[in-house]
Amino acid sequence: MHAVEFKDIVAASERIRSAIQRTPVLTSSAINAQLGFEVYFKCENFQRVGAFKMRGAYNALSHFDPDARKRGVVTASSGNHAQAIACSARLLEMPAKVVMPFDAPAMKISATRGYGAEVIFYDRYTQDRDAICNEISASNGMTVIPPFDHPDVIAGQGTAAMELLEEVPDLDAICAPLGGGGLLSGTAIAAKQMQSTIRVYGCEPLAGNDGQQSFRTGEIVRIDTPKTIADGAQTQALGALTFPIIRALVDDVLAVDDVTLIRAMQCHAERMKLWVEPTGCLGLGALLSHTLNLPKNAKVGVIISGGNVDAARFSSLIQSLS
Amino acid sequence: MHAVEFKDIVAASERIRSAIQRTPVLTSSAINAQLGFEVYFKCENFQRVGAFKMRGAYNALSHFDPDARKRGVVTASSGNHAQAIACSARLLEMPAKVVMPFDAPAMKISATRGYGAEVIFYDRYTQDRDAICNEISASNGMTVIPPFDHPDVIAGQGTAAMELLEEVPDLDAICAPLGGGGLLSGTAIAAKQMQSTIRVYGCEPLAGNDGQQSFRTGEIVRIDTPKTIADGAQTQALGALTFPIIRALVDDVLAVDDVTLIRAMQCHAERMKLWVEPTGCLGLGALLSHTLNLPKNAKVGVIISGGNVDAARFSSLIQSLS
Repeated sequence: MHAVEFKDIVAASERIRSAIQRTPVLTSSAINAQLGFEVYFKCENFQRVGAFKMRGAYNALSHFDPDARKRGVVTASSGNHAQAIACSARLLEMPAKVVMPFDAPAMKISATRGYGAEVIFYDRYTQDRDAICNEISASNGMTVIPPFDHPDVIAGQGTAAMELLEEVPDLDAICAPLGGGGLLSGTAIAAKQMQSTIRVYGCEPLAGNDGQQSFRTGEIVRIDTPKTIADGAQTQALGALTFPIIRALVDDVLAVDDVTLIRAMQCHAERMKLWVEPTGCLGLGALLSHTLNLPKNAKVGVIISGGNVDAARFSSLIQSLS
Repeated sequence: MHAVEFKDIVAASERIRSAIQRTPVLTSSAINAQLGFEVYFKCENFQRVGAFKMRGAYNALSHFDPDARKRGVVTASSGNHAQAIACSARLLEMPAKVVMPFDAPAMKISATRGYGAEVIFYDRYTQDRDAICNEISASNGMTVIPPFDHPDVIAGQGTAAMELLEEVPDLDAICAPLGGGGLLSGTAIAAKQMQSTIRVYGCEPLAGNDGQQSFRTGEIVRIDTPKTIADGAQTQALGALTFPIIRALVDDVLAVDDVTLIRAMQCHAERMKLWVEPTGCLGLGALLSHTLNLPKNAKVGVIISGGNVDAARFSSLIQSLS
């Protein structure tokens, strides 16, 4: 019995319906021809706040009782979870504080503030963001909603894969980005329940392959904050809730280097006309750089996790290729 | 009586249905807040071949009789019409030759060849592409399908606005990019028929504002090939068929400078997660740089004409802003 079950994802789906977008599933004949698969991209870059994080954040906050709602929410995030908590808190009319690394993308910081949340900065290479969150919570009674290791967050994130499998029920495999494991564990629960023979792949930046190490050794491996362009997956370790789910239900974890992520970003743009942030390219990046043991023309789902990258950063990443 | 009537657009819509995408209509609350309008973007960047040109090209080629189909098609184009003719010719199993400027974007040249068409280069600053086309046609019997000044092309292009108005029937205004006027004239015919009080705006690069001059003086004004980043709108003059339609049905022609086009490209990317080529940004660019005499929260349709820009060019345009 895991911390989250499929029925929790179904319940989350109902609970968040009015607050989120049902994002489109897009395909590209050019990418299919290149990979030899039929690939179905679930475009969470079109999600509210620009990322799937809205699903888990809104689901979690919608469970608060009236007293907790009055006191509000505090969280720590490298970006998209921050915006999602801030936006959900505004929708549910509660105060929010967000602990963010001072080197988070400017666009994510200003968006978080734009939703009315208070931003508190820390140094992600030297300070412990969880400790800062807990201090705030202890002093003012705000509830901490962590970015991934929370049952309501995991259940909310699982709704993206659920929607994808509702539209394409016979997927042979599904690929999801892996940072702390909220999206991947929710994806695995939904996917294995809805299509029992599906293969589930986590896709992680090579510089921060703690998830792959943890998956393969069976113990949570903790690393220093990795330096990768995939800023949404710079986590140091899987969570106490997400790790057992991933270990039990995921088929493999694939690591993707930063240059491949940039090539995938270019491919999403040129071939699909989609604006995808580096972390959102982990799925396509994995397909471009790994040979999966799947039949020719296998149906593969890919979750594009988000699109929050500013044009200046996108452009300098593209130019770094040449 | 114009060369094209609304019934021709309705007929084109039926004829091309199986060959094209019904593209989505997307909105952005951030852009709406900034402009004070409700803006509905018809995303022809998601169209087959990456641009609306597929509509007119397929409609035109599908009218060929068996003998003409055997001889094939020849055209001249700075890019998207080339790909559209090449793709349509392949679908309809006919030979195709495309006369392209040697400095057309590499991506557009390779895509045209990828569809099986033969590419013939010319210098757009010194040579007459129409003369080259006519020579080829005279020597081998191929039918010339020009990029805009043809009734079947105009009727096909009008189907994009028709679809947009089917989804949002009460638009107060509609903005379409203006090069040679195929898209704008088709848009105007469809829009005025479906919503008689709608205002129709043509949106043109400032460096090549022959359309605006022609519209305002009542005579077709011919200019040298303009140097603008909007490579899909580098035409020298409106056509004999498109000009009278534009003069009769369009409310105004708005000119947009290149820097505004780059800002619009950035806005489409960051706010809407859409990859749009410079010419495709003419509509949003016009809204960003002109004050339209429309009521607050007016419903404004914008046709995003295409998304065929390579990542290197996109990036250097963005970096030129800083």
